[in-house]
Amino acid sequence: MEIFYARESDGKTVFLDQEESAHCVKVLRHRRGDEITVVDGLGTMMRCRLADDSPKGASAEVVETFQDWGGHPYSLTMAVCPTKNNDRFEWFVEKATEVGVDMIVPMIGERSERRVFKPERSRKIALSAMKQSLKARLPFVAEPVSVKDFINESADGIKMICYCFEGETMRRSIEDVLAEAAEGANITIMIGPEGDFSPEEARLAVENGYIPVHLGPSRLRTETAAVTAATAVYLHYLK
Amino acid sequence: MEIFYARESDGKTVFLDQEESAHCVKVLRHRRGDEITVVDGLGTMMRCRLADDSPKGASAEVVETFQDWGGHPYSLTMAVCPTKNNDRFEWFVEKATEVGVDMIVPMIGERSERRVFKPERSRKIALSAMKQSLKARLPFVAEPVSVKDFINESADGIKMICYCFEGETMRRSIEDVLAEAAEGANITIMIGPEGDFSPEEARLAVENGYIPVHLGPSRLRTETAAVTAATAVYLHYLK
Repeated sequence: MEIFYARESDGKTVFLDQEESAHCVKVLRHRRGDEITVVDGLGTMMRCRLADDSPKGASAEVVETFQDWGGHPYSLTMAVCPTKNNDRFEWFVEKATEVGVDMIVPMIGERSERRVFKPERSRKIALSAMKQSLKARLPFVAEPVSVKDFINESADGIKMICYCFEGETMRRSIEDVLAEAAEGANITIMIGPEGDFSPEEARLAVENGYIPVHLGPSRLRTETAAVTAATAVYLHYLK
Repeated sequence: MEIFYARESDGKTVFLDQEESAHCVKVLRHRRGDEITVVDGLGTMMRCRLADDSPKGASAEVVETFQDWGGHPYSLTMAVCPTKNNDRFEWFVEKATEVGVDMIVPMIGERSERRVFKPERSRKIALSAMKQSLKARLPFVAEPVSVKDFINESADGIKMICYCFEGETMRRSIEDVLAEAAEGANITIMIGPEGDFSPEEARLAVENGYIPVHLGPSRLRTETAAVTAATAVYLHYLK
């Protein structure tokens, strides 16, 4: 099943950008009158009929609309410090999108080795992972922010920080905290860089309502911890 | 923390192979008398004192021994059909090893596009992931087998097959099945290729005691499904 992404839609007609138009018309050779499946990236899937098969700017008429297509019963923000190796972070973006995430915030921590992060590639990866996993909502990959700014600006809900508080702070397992997460919960999870959060960052998070959690006995890489945490949220709602 | 892997050990002395010896002596410049941490790949970690610092074949005296180091309270066999793209399967091997897996069986299914699989690279990846994630037990990456042979030869325990039985068979969620998994459970999970299992393979599995399970509403790639299933087992034991 092939999914097309339309940034523009007025509810009656959807407009594919140049890249999607070329893929639809040149690569897949769709012609006027063909039925195609289009998502708006905001949660809506539309069965459409191709009206203009121009490879530079195709458009289609909406036949049928499905709301919250491929959605999930929670809202998850993953705030993760990008890894030294970009591929590892991009792999997290792909996997988290497949499983189900709403917002990805790249954070720069005091101990981050990677101090610069350009979200463009990750946004492309989230887009193709959304289409590949048959979802209509595109996870938003934010511009990078400092860990402290993220903590100070973060919204309410169930907030967790994965941090190896070396014994000094009591941590709960992520499963234990998620047991309290109801349908539609707003969940935020912070994952630190290879060098972990600084003690001040961790203290600030706890002062701002972040629950210190652990992901169990295994020592996981940054991107593995991030995917494991997102998967824990996803699996919680299967129960 | 640097971990060395010793294929040979008599309980008193451990012997590093050429690659590990070179890494220990040439790269990390360890010298006779230095304390090093060695694992045997069978679950035992040993604090050792370097006795022979030859870069071709170093050996060390065992000072202290720790059993089941970095172990997990279950035994998990992941039987997964290798993906068209080798990197994706190798990524699964790395992540499953970090989280905790005991045996990885590459299966060739009737609908597998990849009909040939060489385990050498995956074994190297499992070895470095074991060391990186501070575990002493090396997951065994088996030689490839056909799906039907694997089913016919598979052991007892909690056996699950992830298969999109299109409505015709009642499936339980993996979380529902894992709820019955006690400490030390023997768990086997089968994940099909991009083209999924054939109906005959699925039927044979069910006849042989495999419980049809789903991983929830998200449509996951083969390697994502495999990591999600392994993570579900790992997280079950955090409760």
